[in-house]
Amino acid sequence: MKKTLIVGTVAYDEIETPKKHSGKILGGAATYIGLSSALFSSQASIISVVGGDFEPSFLELLKSKGLNIDSIEIISKGKTFYWKGKYHKDWNKRDTLSTQLNVLADFNPVVKKEDTYSEIIVLGNLHPAVQNSVLSQMRSKTKSVILDTMNFWMDNSLQELLKVIKQVNIIIINDEEAIQLSGKDTLFAAATEILKMGPEHVVIKKGEHGAMLFSEKEFFTTPAYPVNKVEDPTGAGDSFAGGFAGFLSQSKDLDFETLKLAVVHGTVLASFCVEGFGTSKMEKLNKETVEKRFKEFKKYTRY
Amino acid sequence: MKKTLIVGTVAYDEIETPKKHSGKILGGAATYIGLSSALFSSQASIISVVGGDFEPSFLELLKSKGLNIDSIEIISKGKTFYWKGKYHKDWNKRDTLSTQLNVLADFNPVVKKEDTYSEIIVLGNLHPAVQNSVLSQMRSKTKSVILDTMNFWMDNSLQELLKVIKQVNIIIINDEEAIQLSGKDTLFAAATEILKMGPEHVVIKKGEHGAMLFSEKEFFTTPAYPVNKVEDPTGAGDSFAGGFAGFLSQSKDLDFETLKLAVVHGTVLASFCVEGFGTSKMEKLNKETVEKRFKEFKKYTRY
Repeated sequence: MKKTLIVGTVAYDEIETPKKHSGKILGGAATYIGLSSALFSSQASIISVVGGDFEPSFLELLKSKGLNIDSIEIISKGKTFYWKGKYHKDWNKRDTLSTQLNVLADFNPVVKKEDTYSEIIVLGNLHPAVQNSVLSQMRSKTKSVILDTMNFWMDNSLQELLKVIKQVNIIIINDEEAIQLSGKDTLFAAATEILKMGPEHVVIKKGEHGAMLFSEKEFFTTPAYPVNKVEDPTGAGDSFAGGFAGFLSQSKDLDFETLKLAVVHGTVLASFCVEGFGTSKMEKLNKETVEKRFKEFKKYTRY
Repeated sequence: MKKTLIVGTVAYDEIETPKKHSGKILGGAATYIGLSSALFSSQASIISVVGGDFEPSFLELLKSKGLNIDSIEIISKGKTFYWKGKYHKDWNKRDTLSTQLNVLADFNPVVKKEDTYSEIIVLGNLHPAVQNSVLSQMRSKTKSVILDTMNFWMDNSLQELLKVIKQVNIIIINDEEAIQLSGKDTLFAAATEILKMGPEHVVIKKGEHGAMLFSEKEFFTTPAYPVNKVEDPTGAGDSFAGGFAGFLSQSKDLDFETLKLAVVHGTVLASFCVEGFGTSKMEKLNKETVEKRFKEFKKYTRY
């Protein structure tokens, strides 16, 4: 079992879909990454920050899943990061109605000594400067750094982001962002370009259309697990990253065959995520349910 | 080897892409279906109609691939069906600039006696009344009828189209059309609804995102073969149908496992098609190249 460190937001989300309005609920990249990876590993720590307004039961929930929450700082006078978004009938489009950074604005992550030796590091979507700060504190000899990022940082902090990308082993990115980051117009060309920026592997997520894995010499493609009914896409990308990292944390080698399986487990975890509102489905998952869907999915794609 | 009958257009196409303008070239659904299926079977006949203006070398080309062209009627005083379309940077959108039915307007297909016993019948995209007329002439005891259609007929001849759908074994349809035909809003729900209309199997094509195969009890999904550079998407759907039918024509059984392989061969043939302008790539293909890509694709998707 590889020790895993997850850095990302633990937050309040408010979600509107055509059918439902969530009110203020548990959200955040590190939350979804943690809930997913906890299904594979019991040695993951989360580094994050919340405000005094943060519901203690949410922290307890993460802890109950086996996640180490000692590095989730609570700033009692501050307010928790808050995001409000609205989805339309076409799930692929969403509007951000509100983003309140609150305590995240001054987030300066400190990696506890025991976590500096983590072998898997998941940099959830955050300011690249924060991601860089975490990387500079790491002391693990052999490590796999997995980066999740988004177009917002490409638009606003590209140089800092490129510094992070140079240091990571695996970048997970969606199709549009891969095109934007690379300046190329096909996913193959984009992946080839991004590989030149530093990572040994590029994972391109295509939402309901699956994912692709690229290395300099190898390639893998998978459709997505077919979800019957999408309830809420929030957290799907983070759940993918968490499933991906979780699978790696329990694997001996990190060769291409293992990475393929990590991608498939990522798509399986993302498929569960979208079937529930917010984290609801992710909270109820267990290893057996995940394994069952993995096998079912394998059957659906084999010939 | 199963005897195959292909009904569809043999036509002139004129194609504009952001990079190239084709001028008047060989096109038509039956052309692409024929070129693809000929890679598997040498017992396919085409039923179609062209005008006196049709380049004899195009007919010779089809014949040279082993296709029986005796039922391609030449109306010497008429003009060949002509379609002109324009693609944009986003290959998924295209504008039809001109459609001239010409000899197709009065097309009344006559199935030659020897063809009435065909075991595989591919109804290429055509007026449903024409498709119905062909079906009514068939005498094969055991047959697989494969239908390809498009939204135009749903908009304009729905009742006639539903009569065809009721009689076919397999319908091949793209994602948007499946949604439109079924009135449902997910592909799963759409396929379930379309299965109720008659076919035992529904194949949903998702272009660059692959394809899905549904029966009442079984399901299969595959990504598309990743094409490095799209030259021209014209004929991709027909090439898919041709590869699908071609694979079935050489298979003993028509069970779900065989149909899965047919879908994968369909996506492989479509991937070749889009790599060339018009039929250019399809004309140069051989069995070995197809088999090589099939194996490569299998490797790309296996874990």
